[in-house]
Amino acid sequence: MNLFDLSGSGIDKEKFDTLLSKDNVTIERIISHAQSTPEGEWYDQTWDEWVIVIEGKAGLLFFGEEDVITLNKGDSIFLPAHQKHRVEWTDLEEPTIWLAVHIRSEANT
Amino acid sequence: MNLFDLSGSGIDKEKFDTLLSKDNVTIERIISHAQSTPEGEWYDQTWDEWVIVIEGKAGLLFFGEEDVITLNKGDSIFLPAHQKHRVEWTDLEEPTIWLAVHIRSEANT
Repeated sequence: MNLFDLSGSGIDKEKFDTLLSKDNVTIERIISHAQSTPEGEWYDQTWDEWVIVIEGKAGLLFFGEEDVITLNKGDSIFLPAHQKHRVEWTDLEEPTIWLAVHIRSEANT
Repeated sequence: MNLFDLSGSGIDKEKFDTLLSKDNVTIERIISHAQSTPEGEWYDQTWDEWVIVIEGKAGLLFFGEEDVITLNKGDSIFLPAHQKHRVEWTDLEEPTIWLAVHIRSEANT
């Protein structure tokens, strides 16, 4: 599957595709069409995640913080296990393509 | 560091930057300016690698194979440990930006 192939994605919901699953690592592509995390909801993962925006842009908020972090094309961020976060917004004009690397370790499961 | 920031890279050699090192996982950006693996040399890694071409393109050859695999923008490939391979060529006209995820596991070290 090509990273930039948007077929099968749409404005009704985000699309998640697993590109690799090996040992404790999962690499995932996410396509967002202006979606955000539902109001009041937070991701609270038991594993570490590294994520990069390949196309588009997004706003990320850490629980307890006031400032939304803007991730432009090419920006990446590390999300430690149990660091609650939510996606406040994604690009309204073009699809946002994310690449996420999920890392499960004995220390944080 | 932004993935698309090419500063510090040049035609004299490939540029390698570690974007994340966590547990058994290393995420690396590689910028190639038409470079290839030196004649007669092969990568023979003791760990698994997943690699994707984000910009540009490249030709990859597995040891013992005749056909060079073309990786266009957005194409990815999994390189198991000890699968000998070499980069036959990278884009001559624009920089090739790679993202590589190296996964070390007890099974293959």
